[in-house]
Amino acid sequence: MSDSTFAARKDWRVADLSMAPFGRKEMLLAEHEMPGLMALREEYGDSKPLAGARISGSLHMTIQTAVLIETLTALGAEVRWASCNIFSTQDHAAAAVVVGPNGTVDEPAGVPVYAWKGETLEEYWWCTDQMMTWPDAADGTTYDGPNMILDDGGDATMLLHKGVEFEKAGEVPDPTEASSAEFAIVLGLLQRTLKSDPGKWTRMASHIKGVTEETTTGVHRLYKMMEEGELIFPAINVNDSVTKSKFDNLYGCRHSLVDSISRATDVMIGGKTALVLGYGDVGKGCVQSLQGQGARVIVTEIDPINALQAAMEGLQVLPLEDCIDEVDIFVTATGNFNLITIDHMKQMKHNAIVCNIGHFDNEIDMAGLARSGATRDELKPGTDVWKFDDGKQIIVLAEGRLVNLGCATGHPSFVMSCSFTNQVLAQIELFQNTASYPLGVYVLPKHLDEKVARLHLDSLGVKLTQLTDEQAAYLDINPSGPFKPENYRY
Amino acid sequence: MSDSTFAARKDWRVADLSMAPFGRKEMLLAEHEMPGLMALREEYGDSKPLAGARISGSLHMTIQTAVLIETLTALGAEVRWASCNIFSTQDHAAAAVVVGPNGTVDEPAGVPVYAWKGETLEEYWWCTDQMMTWPDAADGTTYDGPNMILDDGGDATMLLHKGVEFEKAGEVPDPTEASSAEFAIVLGLLQRTLKSDPGKWTRMASHIKGVTEETTTGVHRLYKMMEEGELIFPAINVNDSVTKSKFDNLYGCRHSLVDSISRATDVMIGGKTALVLGYGDVGKGCVQSLQGQGARVIVTEIDPINALQAAMEGLQVLPLEDCIDEVDIFVTATGNFNLITIDHMKQMKHNAIVCNIGHFDNEIDMAGLARSGATRDELKPGTDVWKFDDGKQIIVLAEGRLVNLGCATGHPSFVMSCSFTNQVLAQIELFQNTASYPLGVYVLPKHLDEKVARLHLDSLGVKLTQLTDEQAAYLDINPSGPFKPENYRY
Amino acid sequence: MSDSTFAARKDWRVADLSMAPFGRKEMLLAEHEMPGLMALREEYGDSKPLAGARISGSLHMTIQTAVLIETLTALGAEVRWASCNIFSTQDHAAAAVVVGPNGTVDEPAGVPVYAWKGETLEEYWWCTDQMMTWPDAADGTTYDGPNMILDDGGDATMLLHKGVEFEKAGEVPDPTEASSAEFAIVLGLLQRTLKSDPGKWTRMASHIKGVTEETTTGVHRLYKMMEEGELIFPAINVNDSVTKSKFDNLYGCRHSLVDSISRATDVMIGGKTALVLGYGDVGKGCVQSLQGQGARVIVTEIDPINALQAAMEGLQVLPLEDCIDEVDIFVTATGNFNLITIDHMKQMKHNAIVCNIGHFDNEIDMAGLARSGATRDELKPGTDVWKFDDGKQIIVLAEGRLVNLGCATGHPSFVMSCSFTNQVLAQIELFQNTASYPLGVYVLPKHLDEKVARLHLDSLGVKLTQLTDEQAAYLDINPSGPFKPENYRY
Amino acid sequence: MSDSTFAARKDWRVADLSMAPFGRKEMLLAEHEMPGLMALREEYGDSKPLAGARISGSLHMTIQTAVLIETLTALGAEVRWASCNIFSTQDHAAAAVVVGPNGTVDEPAGVPVYAWKGETLEEYWWCTDQMMTWPDAADGTTYDGPNMILDDGGDATMLLHKGVEFEKAGEVPDPTEASSAEFAIVLGLLQRTLKSDPGKWTRMASHIKGVTEETTTGVHRLYKMMEEGELIFPAINVNDSVTKSKFDNLYGCRHSLVDSISRATDVMIGGKTALVLGYGDVGKGCVQSLQGQGARVIVTEIDPINALQAAMEGLQVLPLEDCIDEVDIFVTATGNFNLITIDHMKQMKHNAIVCNIGHFDNEIDMAGLARSGATRDELKPGTDVWKFDDGKQIIVLAEGRLVNLGCATGHPSFVMSCSFTNQVLAQIELFQNTASYPLGVYVLPKHLDEKVARLHLDSLGVKLTQLTDEQAAYLDINPSGPFKPENYRY
Repeated sequence: MSDSTFAARKDWRVADLSMAPFGRKEMLLAEHEMPGLMALREEYGDSKPLAGARISGSLHMTIQTAVLIETLTALGAEVRWASCNIFSTQDHAAAAVVVGPNGTVDEPAGVPVYAWKGETLEEYWWCTDQMMTWPDAADGTTYDGPNMILDDGGDATMLLHKGVEFEKAGEVPDPTEASSAEFAIVLGLLQRTLKSDPGKWTRMASHIKGVTEETTTGVHRLYKMMEEGELIFPAINVNDSVTKSKFDNLYGCRHSLVDSISRATDVMIGGKTALVLGYGDVGKGCVQSLQGQGARVIVTEIDPINALQAAMEGLQVLPLEDCIDEVDIFVTATGNFNLITIDHMKQMKHNAIVCNIGHFDNEIDMAGLARSGATRDELKPGTDVWKFDDGKQIIVLAEGRLVNLGCATGHPSFVMSCSFTNQVLAQIELFQNTASYPLGVYVLPKHLDEKVARLHLDSLGVKLTQLTDEQAAYLDINPSGPFKPENYRY
Repeated sequence: MSDSTFAARKDWRVADLSMAPFGRKEMLLAEHEMPGLMALREEYGDSKPLAGARISGSLHMTIQTAVLIETLTALGAEVRWASCNIFSTQDHAAAAVVVGPNGTVDEPAGVPVYAWKGETLEEYWWCTDQMMTWPDAADGTTYDGPNMILDDGGDATMLLHKGVEFEKAGEVPDPTEASSAEFAIVLGLLQRTLKSDPGKWTRMASHIKGVTEETTTGVHRLYKMMEEGELIFPAINVNDSVTKSKFDNLYGCRHSLVDSISRATDVMIGGKTALVLGYGDVGKGCVQSLQGQGARVIVTEIDPINALQAAMEGLQVLPLEDCIDEVDIFVTATGNFNLITIDHMKQMKHNAIVCNIGHFDNEIDMAGLARSGATRDELKPGTDVWKFDDGKQIIVLAEGRLVNLGCATGHPSFVMSCSFTNQVLAQIELFQNTASYPLGVYVLPKHLDEKVARLHLDSLGVKLTQLTDEQAAYLDINPSGPFKPENYRY
Repeated sequence: MSDSTFAARKDWRVADLSMAPFGRKEMLLAEHEMPGLMALREEYGDSKPLAGARISGSLHMTIQTAVLIETLTALGAEVRWASCNIFSTQDHAAAAVVVGPNGTVDEPAGVPVYAWKGETLEEYWWCTDQMMTWPDAADGTTYDGPNMILDDGGDATMLLHKGVEFEKAGEVPDPTEASSAEFAIVLGLLQRTLKSDPGKWTRMASHIKGVTEETTTGVHRLYKMMEEGELIFPAINVNDSVTKSKFDNLYGCRHSLVDSISRATDVMIGGKTALVLGYGDVGKGCVQSLQGQGARVIVTEIDPINALQAAMEGLQVLPLEDCIDEVDIFVTATGNFNLITIDHMKQMKHNAIVCNIGHFDNEIDMAGLARSGATRDELKPGTDVWKFDDGKQIIVLAEGRLVNLGCATGHPSFVMSCSFTNQVLAQIELFQNTASYPLGVYVLPKHLDEKVARLHLDSLGVKLTQLTDEQAAYLDINPSGPFKPENYRY
Repeated sequence: MSDSTFAARKDWRVADLSMAPFGRKEMLLAEHEMPGLMALREEYGDSKPLAGARISGSLHMTIQTAVLIETLTALGAEVRWASCNIFSTQDHAAAAVVVGPNGTVDEPAGVPVYAWKGETLEEYWWCTDQMMTWPDAADGTTYDGPNMILDDGGDATMLLHKGVEFEKAGEVPDPTEASSAEFAIVLGLLQRTLKSDPGKWTRMASHIKGVTEETTTGVHRLYKMMEEGELIFPAINVNDSVTKSKFDNLYGCRHSLVDSISRATDVMIGGKTALVLGYGDVGKGCVQSLQGQGARVIVTEIDPINALQAAMEGLQVLPLEDCIDEVDIFVTATGNFNLITIDHMKQMKHNAIVCNIGHFDNEIDMAGLARSGATRDELKPGTDVWKFDDGKQIIVLAEGRLVNLGCATGHPSFVMSCSFTNQVLAQIELFQNTASYPLGVYVLPKHLDEKVARLHLDSLGVKLTQLTDEQAAYLDINPSGPFKPENYRY
């Protein structure tokens, strides 16, 4: 479609297009901090390995994602986008993507985006549907949809699979009997498409070469679908690239945890006692973050191996119940649920700070807190003082949702550059070498994982040592890698 | 004066009184983080050791200062306040102090404040004059002024000394021949008072029992005046209390440096190379701050002792010139001037971040930068991108002024509680034991320094060990302190 | 065999049996530091899951190994032992094992050991042969050999495989044409057994249920044999248990590197510049070790992922050539060869310290050094000053062999307890569930890996948090583990 | 005296002169690690500012002290030496000093030393007397004694002062009524000299230009003598040079604490819980040492300022009683006495490690332990297992004396170079500028303190930044220092 058509048709929906110039300014700085993506533009900008790819993307619509999107287009892809979370859109980023590098606020010439901060769930799924539903066929055929999916959390993938399932069944289950309010909305949407275009999802699925999935949750869903024989196209698990899981989780949270607490509360972290629930990669990053500020840190763990790692790093490892009266700052980092119950909250110190950097807001029993009779006083957006009957109060950040998105700006660009360089390489790999990926869930080949790392070294001044041929022969590896066996843990 | 009179007379001037409720909310949380001040209210709230004290205070008008001011009044003092920096006022804090704990926005009942964010220099000295000039005599006498000064940087003290000097001389030097634009304003002000009330400053000085001074610069001025025989009332050097200089500088900057950089730029600090210029207490805090985030840190030093300390902590110590092309983040922390010249800036890496947490904005040659022909693009307040002719750009924070005040919220409450508890104890000491302090500059006696620390232990869960009498005898000290000889360095 | 027979027959060979009492004293303390092994004795001491097992073990004959050996016997096994390295035997440990818990120096009643510090290569293989060759059949049958192998580096496994191969071929290759001096010795040994007992190794192999292998090198050999179809019994790869590779390498080296350098040189590490070659688990432990002492640390890497990890931890990453003139302490930690060449050594600073904690002594070109004309002056055993023609000298530790074995006491007991608890569980698993392990190379199932960790928590005061059933259901895992997917990297 | 006379007269007494070659080898390496002393030899080797100085030195007779002694002689001094502690002599160091750089074991040509490891108290004071009593007058006069004292702990100074006091009184108090067994020995010695040469000490004192004192204890004695009017010659307090107290205590102990524990026990420190009693400079070094190895560290403190410092560094601060059952490693670092009582020891965990790095062995109640009925089993010299009636045992290092001297090799050379460079500069200062030091106790002028640091920078690769004249003027200091006000704490 031509740019002017794009603008005129309003084939996008964002909060405020006038924020685009500010977004584009931030994108310029972000590009400097995303050397992996910029290197891919340089390497592949001419060959355009994604020419012909029509990518439907569902991933937090932030400044970093904006750089990702324009990297995909620089490599030849056509792209449509929605956010994968109702709160995570940065409105100036969404606007900047719509305007594009060569457009203007009056004459946007970028990529269609459906995303704004604070969508309702109805709006969220409407956006997802718009992002999946391409207006016309860019390649001259009659097929009107994506041939690649880029997903974060698996909502786009799930919608498509459910659409196919119900089209095959010929009917959609009754939304009023859905297992959750949100799934009722999905069912409603699919009821409508089943009526308006009964072959929509099946037709779309037949053209999809595959999906590249960003996170643990989405990956978990994919493996489960694969096991149960329900997966209908191949998937690349980007989450478990070393350069994703061991960087984004660990170093991203190291950066953003204290950043979030400081922005939300201005409380001095040094000298305080903090409890980090969970010592996985996220928890490890949180511990570094807090210790770097001089906090005393205690850790909870369910897994004896992670617990032993914590102990070997000099950390005290205790159940929450054993230290609750000593702790000033509680941080959940598990992916589990109901770690901090309302009973726990009632036992905390006055003005204890409670936040979550793990996954869903149910790591802390926010629902129980709301029901408890405690009163809520919003100090500023993202910082609530909850006061109990007895006068004791606690400070809850980001309403129990991810504190680094709710109270700060999420992971910084550099670490997202690692994750997103994996995404782009995975898109190229699936799109170009489709035949090498029969139905299944794959991690990126190690040489690409190493490539992601390699593209981030220069900007940090890192200089690699080069194996001699003799050394490579001695080690029985290729002198340019891959360097490690598959089960190596880094 | 009665509260209603106070409100009606508008004996205060702040940006926006309607921000008071938000300020008072933040004060509530700050009070929790300022256990030293709250303990003093508890200990001295009944005995009111500052009854009769009329304190003119010049110190950054922040939320923490608001808690200080109300501690002084809780101890019986009357107080008037101005900020000691044209940019450092938090307007909601100023409003909250004017309204006071028992007043309302419509009927303020607090303390007179003359301060707002972004004063001109003219306004600044007008505010200082207002703060020094009490409207009438609370004690029934005809003397209309303060009997105590609480100063930060020494501007109030200087104004008073200059006033006395020129009243004695009978004339004020010509402002057009002043050594600086700012001093010309001071001379203008004193010209006017010399005309309107030729004995104003001399009369005021005769009632002053002394000044308690917060910072290095002010202290340096005091010692110099003392040496040169110009000091006219005693001073307590609060800055060199251990619980001030070794806490506020070190731990305050550890907290606020990365907080500032993150808020201003969202750049990932981990993996970057940072240069900290100066390895005094501020520099030491900066290094901890940056290393806690995973930066590689290099240090510059002029003093071989501090340089050797840095080396023993595993830091590389180099002149700026030797590493300028490796550094991503520059932080000046010296109190010196012209450390980062325009030539240095031109040699920096593209998008290098440059900030100052030392003292004045001349640690970085901001004037030279402005003259250099580089163009300035404000990304957001406090974050400017300066682009040179050749396309290279650098990111300068807070216009070269203190980055933690300009891009974040300054030192956190807890560490300011240490400093301000020293201030209050110093005010009590000078006001009550005036005779023990003949003309001179004093540090607080060690037992008070230890008291400040003691008042901050409980809230951190610290439990002291108590000397037995036998042990105290063995060590030849009092079992309740002071514990160390005067030259002990901590 | 009866104890007295054992003693009388001298079915063992160690340096000095009179050192046994000292060895047994150290074993008592080591047992306290090896809670995993002691817990296995408690758990399995009655059921004796290794009753019937005849284990031939080849692993550094240290105090920790002594505790391992007696754990195996406490679980019912019969054991014979040799060291897997000509230098690594602690003679008092070997003596203590021979004497046993209930024997005396005059009437030893322990386990046959063939090991002493400083064996020749001929002696080494003689010891290995003795360890493999059981004197008679304890179970009354006529088979005279082991049914389990416990190996470190794969020498025992290799000898047996080669024996079988040559017995099948009916002849042994000519030792004078061997690829190395050491392999010539192996061939000589096998020529002799082919003559004396042409079915020895084939018969032995047919009874072997499997081997449990301790290290990277041995594991690498096993996978290679498996790939090439040469493996003749199943193997468990103990090395890649999380509780081995991520503990022993990382935390063992963190402990032993600075310990080695201090014992060997007494040089202050703080303030020095150290270069760690390789940032794998061993390198990571070395960096922690050196930074904990205040060294500035630079790292070399060939793998971009590990290099990026180093950078994110604030480390400078450079090739050796780029920093050779700044470095005081060189530590090789790679498994590669010829990292530090004679040319490098000539360019080093005067009195630079050079050591290896990676694998073989060829990480440093010791042969080149010997040939270079430099003179060697032994300061004390393990610490040599090598002086070049030009007067410059360097200090080489442990003759380039593993510095923690050569200059200190190797890994500490606690971390070896993790590794050896894996070994014992692997022996039980292979011996009892032989059918579950068809020919192949396996890592221990995750639940056993987690069990190893669990057995080490109590002694460190670690208290785990227990999943509720609801949480386990939510996470879709068993509440008592395993807790992580197979590809989790810890 | 001529060298041959020296050798023939046996004007020295050490354990074993044949150890000298080994000692001289170690001295060569130590010289490389003592750049401050070597720089003084270079700077002053020709001008010989100590020509004419006859220095009686009492300080631990170690390899580092050997380098100090030969620096003093290289600067022109004549020297005699004794150790200041009955256990601290390194016998090969003592031998090396006696032999000297140009002597041989058969023809020693060095400095008279009276010191061996394991002196009795009688022998100790005999050695001290020998060291003070010069055989004849090197300068041709009849005075036979020192004109400078270099002291550590003040024993030499005390002996001289008591000698003078009793000569003045004409009698020595009855040794049988002495306050301690050791003082009885001193009185006995002085009784004998009073008889043999009643003017010995008075005559000696009249020639003494002053003493330079190494440690806290000695300094404390000096200030006390000064206060009480008993001091008879000026003293320089070397201990409180910044480059001594903030380096030797802090970085020396960081190095030597884990070194001591490892050599004594081989126990893994990572994962253990350690309690450091006292958070002064020594305690701070201990905490770094233990945390660098991955221990969890708790601290005890009596001083609220130090306690608050500990908390701000993320440390838990508790009385011993509150955590005794969690602690694996106890380290006293106070200078106080009876911190760990026999009751505490009985409550410790089985196999807890107990050691002292503070001052005297009474920090731990060793006498009480000996009386308690516990049995002692020496594992190796310096490592004792004490078993109580109930079977519980603890491991006590170095018999409660300084663990880094008893179980390792004390502070490393580099940090001692800082301390000893202060000593040499103090000797020069007092000897050359005697008139500038009227009776009193002085710290070294700051410019010399800075010089000590400066002499240690090159070898660590540290490059200073040089102040411009404009900057120096701005800071109102000399561009080459001193850089800080007197009360600066570093």
